[in-house]
Amino acid sequence: MSYLLYYSPSTASMPVHWMLLELGVPFEARLIDFATGAQRSADYLRLNPAGRVPTLVVDGVPRGESAALLMLLAERHPEAGLAPAPGSAARPVWLETMVFLANSVLPAMRGWFYADKDGDPAGADAVRDFARRQIESGMQRLDDRLSDGRQYLLGEQLSTADLLALVLMRWTRHMPRPATSWPNLAIYIKRLRQRPAFVEVNAREGLSDWLNDDPTAPPA
Amino acid sequence: MSYLLYYSPSTASMPVHWMLLELGVPFEARLIDFATGAQRSADYLRLNPAGRVPTLVVDGVPRGESAALLMLLAERHPEAGLAPAPGSAARPVWLETMVFLANSVLPAMRGWFYADKDGDPAGADAVRDFARRQIESGMQRLDDRLSDGRQYLLGEQLSTADLLALVLMRWTRHMPRPATSWPNLAIYIKRLRQRPAFVEVNAREGLSDWLNDDPTAPPA
Ligand SMILES: N[C@@H](CCC(=O)N[C@@H](CS)C(=O)NCC(=O)O)C(=O)O
Ligand SMILES: N[C@@H](CCC(=O)N[C@@H](CS)C(=O)NCC(=O)O)C(=O)O
Repeated sequence: MSYLLYYSPSTASMPVHWMLLELGVPFEARLIDFATGAQRSADYLRLNPAGRVPTLVVDGVPRGESAALLMLLAERHPEAGLAPAPGSAARPVWLETMVFLANSVLPAMRGWFYADKDGDPAGADAVRDFARRQIESGMQRLDDRLSDGRQYLLGEQLSTADLLALVLMRWTRHMPRPATSWPNLAIYIKRLRQRPAFVEVNAREGLSDWLNDDPTAPPA
Repeated sequence: MSYLLYYSPSTASMPVHWMLLELGVPFEARLIDFATGAQRSADYLRLNPAGRVPTLVVDGVPRGESAALLMLLAERHPEAGLAPAPGSAARPVWLETMVFLANSVLPAMRGWFYADKDGDPAGADAVRDFARRQIESGMQRLDDRLSDGRQYLLGEQLSTADLLALVLMRWTRHMPRPATSWPNLAIYIKRLRQRPAFVEVNAREGLSDWLNDDPTAPPA
């Protein structure tokens, strides 16, 4: 069992990087430096034809799509309990939540952060406005779900959905409405940021803001 | 084991409706009539807080997200072989393909079809233009993948990814560049449209265009 992660700090590779640390499995991490356009180098495009991170090389074969990688890692390491087992009562809601995050919130982030690059710059403000609405309505739905006081998105058990959700919430920190401004999300964010593997992934990626002990963070 | 599908013709419920027919399991289907706004009725919002189709009530519990429902049905009916088994060699690429379809192409369709309704109508053209680029680049990637002559997205075995992909391709039929204009997609589309369960789901949803024997279809 071997893992080689191609990552860039603070991007869609972050939940996968974090999960590898949660699992405590050996892995190698290689930086793809966006500043030099390394994601578009011929070598990297052979691993990931879309020129995106993450790529996780699993037993020699490159794989993409962060949400799929979280699901795959959960399946390969069932002892970590980061996904309900197939056939269990919580399995359908786990699948639904993973797809919801991957398909409502995550692609809207692409619209928010890449409106100029992926599209016509003249329309970028409209694309960002559309993306912002989708992101905020996604955050609202997550806040609603947490309003019954549950610790994690699925209840009392941490899952891959929480890893993906927290990174999505992190990305809102400089948006007009940051996730920390929703009351239930603020509590949830504080809880998850305590995890040693989250602190560790921030350290390894050289990130120091949006941590519980970040002095620049707004009070939660 | 009981299934109750809430659907609207030609929408995101179609791959799930089609899959239930492929499986040959008993199910009930109830029409949600968009013309009367039935998706926003109080009764329906209790089942699906986002007011979207599909909802599949599985053993009494309502579930959403078409891609998650396809994955769940595959897991509940492994004998149908519509997903590689956990741990098998094809499993990672199935997960990656399902997430790619759910997260690159499907949400862009929301931008294309709902730019006015979900966003500021003044920016709708820009949102549609952005969505169209994402959809076309997704179709290009699927065409590239099929260029080795494989029958299905995963190779020689039909999977849930094909059901989702074909419905996404169907939605492009009135777009500036329909999926049928890519050479490998055209062959793939013709092959999948032959399936009796696809013909049947069209009949049940009252759809008569974009079938292999549709006289108005462009030659493939
Ligand atoms: N759906 C993909 C999205 C990956 C993605 O968009 N990654 C961004 C960073 S968050 C990237 O690689 N951007 C580099 C570029 O587009 O040049 C996933 O979840 O893995
Ligand atoms: N991510 C959802 C998307 C569902 C969706 O957007 N459904 C549309 C039809 S394709 C809908 O219900 N529209 C009704 C409305 O928004 O009022 C899924 O895949 O199930």
